[in-house]
Amino acid sequence: MQNHVSKSRLLQILGKRLNFALHQQSVARKAALLFVLAFSLTVISISRSVIAQESSDTQPQLLSQKQVHSIADFTTFNGQSIKEVKLGWESYGELNADKSNAILITHYFTGTSHAAGKYAASDATSGYWDSIIGPNKAIDTNKFFVVSMDSLANLNVKDKNVITTGPASINPATGNPYGLTFPVITMRDMVNTQKSLLESLGIQKLYAVAGPSMGSMQAIEWATAYPDQVERLISVIGSSFSDAWTTAALEQWTIPIKLDQYWQQGNYYKSQPPTEGLTAALMFITQVALTPDYFNQVGVDLKHQPLESKPLMDIQARHGINDWLYNRAKGRAENMDANSLLYLVRACQLFMAGQKQDLRTGLKQMTAKSLFLPATTDLLLMPYNARNTYKELKEMNKDTKIAEIQGHLGHLEGVLNIHKHSATIAAFLAE
Amino acid sequence: MQNHVSKSRLLQILGKRLNFALHQQSVARKAALLFVLAFSLTVISISRSVIAQESSDTQPQLLSQKQVHSIADFTTFNGQSIKEVKLGWESYGELNADKSNAILITHYFTGTSHAAGKYAASDATSGYWDSIIGPNKAIDTNKFFVVSMDSLANLNVKDKNVITTGPASINPATGNPYGLTFPVITMRDMVNTQKSLLESLGIQKLYAVAGPSMGSMQAIEWATAYPDQVERLISVIGSSFSDAWTTAALEQWTIPIKLDQYWQQGNYYKSQPPTEGLTAALMFITQVALTPDYFNQVGVDLKHQPLESKPLMDIQARHGINDWLYNRAKGRAENMDANSLLYLVRACQLFMAGQKQDLRTGLKQMTAKSLFLPATTDLLLMPYNARNTYKELKEMNKDTKIAEIQGHLGHLEGVLNIHKHSATIAAFLAE
Repeated sequence: MQNHVSKSRLLQILGKRLNFALHQQSVARKAALLFVLAFSLTVISISRSVIAQESSDTQPQLLSQKQVHSIADFTTFNGQSIKEVKLGWESYGELNADKSNAILITHYFTGTSHAAGKYAASDATSGYWDSIIGPNKAIDTNKFFVVSMDSLANLNVKDKNVITTGPASINPATGNPYGLTFPVITMRDMVNTQKSLLESLGIQKLYAVAGPSMGSMQAIEWATAYPDQVERLISVIGSSFSDAWTTAALEQWTIPIKLDQYWQQGNYYKSQPPTEGLTAALMFITQVALTPDYFNQVGVDLKHQPLESKPLMDIQARHGINDWLYNRAKGRAENMDANSLLYLVRACQLFMAGQKQDLRTGLKQMTAKSLFLPATTDLLLMPYNARNTYKELKEMNKDTKIAEIQGHLGHLEGVLNIHKHSATIAAFLAE
Repeated sequence: MQNHVSKSRLLQILGKRLNFALHQQSVARKAALLFVLAFSLTVISISRSVIAQESSDTQPQLLSQKQVHSIADFTTFNGQSIKEVKLGWESYGELNADKSNAILITHYFTGTSHAAGKYAASDATSGYWDSIIGPNKAIDTNKFFVVSMDSLANLNVKDKNVITTGPASINPATGNPYGLTFPVITMRDMVNTQKSLLESLGIQKLYAVAGPSMGSMQAIEWATAYPDQVERLISVIGSSFSDAWTTAALEQWTIPIKLDQYWQQGNYYKSQPPTEGLTAALMFITQVALTPDYFNQVGVDLKHQPLESKPLMDIQARHGINDWLYNRAKGRAENMDANSLLYLVRACQLFMAGQKQDLRTGLKQMTAKSLFLPATTDLLLMPYNARNTYKELKEMNKDTKIAEIQGHLGHLEGVLNIHKHSATIAAFLAE
């Protein structure tokens, strides 16, 4: 064991810093922070170097390296073939001799495999769950081999640290981007690419699988599709299936993309992409992933006024809050691909635990111990999803627990404030 | 007094019928009902003839007639001029000799002046608040003269019973539709058109003003802009100003319209209108005005399955729930105008009680007694809006009351199930 700040001290500093980051800074800095934090690889945690400077100990820097896993011929759940699949992955900690200490982290909708650490000590920010993954943290990399993989059809196709295969990839059979000829994918397909990676590493069983949001869907799919290979499941701000409400809510994100005249039925890779449509989708996602409390705090900082003079005089002008939302979404859109968003929405819409016809059939398969961590103020995957799944599992006498993440960040509590349940997660993993 | 079914019996039947209408019928009929009920002039109430058949008494049919109010030169809040304004209005009950029994009903975003009754006994449905407006109902037309007016820029420009002036109207100065040259309007402007009508009828003071949703904004504007002319205010599923969250949430509805290639900066009146964009906006409105519980009940009826075969095989196909939502929204879009939606969104975004710079300044003006009826499950104008306004008024020692509408219809509880608070409203009006 290396010399560390104590975990409690670390969390205290993290909490203080996060609070500072989100509430005390200037609007511009807060806005930049929110989007960098919420929607990039480099979400959530405070620069470890800052913490190291504040602490009397020196905190070791978790460094990660992007690697590539290739699958020559991948067959999708719906029976189609994708040749030459390449997906990025990274890991933290060491695989033990009997390969029994692997924890898989599955990422959220706009996320990537960069769950923790930095690529270089000089990186401004760390992976999105860095507050719970690392030496002596809730998911302790002194004990566990933590692995994470870029999804199929990952949104961030222009991020240099993301390696994905999706509609923006070149179809080797034609030499052109797939566009909408890319097969529809499901959570099972994401799971199967992860399974292929784990098998290549000789890992037969996961000590645990954990993920937020869309990552929760993958984690639940693991535990229900391959119950013998999952010992523990942590579902954060998640859902065990896409109900009618969620299926309709997700569809909203696809609509502005399809209405954008540059979308061209997905054939935009050699012309102008549907940036306005993608930007709109990201505006919708941002709002539903947050809460009135959060927006109204931003409103205070922006001096939001219903009677702002520009929108009062000009039907084409926007209120400051909408300029703020638009500009940040547009910045995020630069790294992303619109068709990939359509594919990820569809994968979420198609999700049912174990890809069965009903929830009970899927959940019955589960043998893993499970922990559900919904966010009480979540407006995207509302906490009823996790509460109902927990209830179903309890009725089946499965070993399951639930705890709610409190706070005013809504869905994003499960990404930005996951460390609030560090102790819950650590205890669950120690069982 | 005429011979009626008792009020309690009437409400009992209404409740039973509404429950039947919303929960027991076939999917197709339920869907048709929802949209007819929720978004047309002919919302909510059960055919009075059905009730009459079921009761031993005969219930008189409230019949209304559309009339027109003209304003030769209307000056908007932002200082612009609109010539030859024409707006439809209707009334129920009789104005008394001293003109002290007038109650103004202000309509919601997608609504019209058809608040109660029918135009002809053979009409399939009645006005949207028919369950509380009529002889011996909560707003008793045996006692009160109830009046309601089509808004400026009313959405339903192709409805033969709607008379409005807005961006789809012909600008008399050019002979062409205004499009985006129509001035930006505010709640104050809607109120001022209503004030003009009331003055033409010799009414100097309102016994009460009441409205749901956008109608609540108009009602609050009345009570804060013209406090001497309003004795009672009933705000249903409403808000006293548009906060940053609401301003951003409303903006979402405008985005698909502006992305539709047929929108053409609002110049579509002589070509193809932006129907897909308008349909998308109505899909968004429908979802946020309802709840997961409601959608998931529809999902049960539609046999919603995440793994439906068409969306599993085809990225361009939709789940049944989304076909359902799309088809009904598209039907509604046929009567509506896309630019008018942009103007109504802007009017809501610009709303602050009394059109002051802050809420306290506006609310301080109020002398009316007030009653707030938010819906507990409302996801559009969440109940915190009404709760906070009530709290502010209490702190100012104003005479104010609050009661919440319980139920699983979210925002639409305030339209479809307003009769749940018939007794509250009747008691408030009797004070």
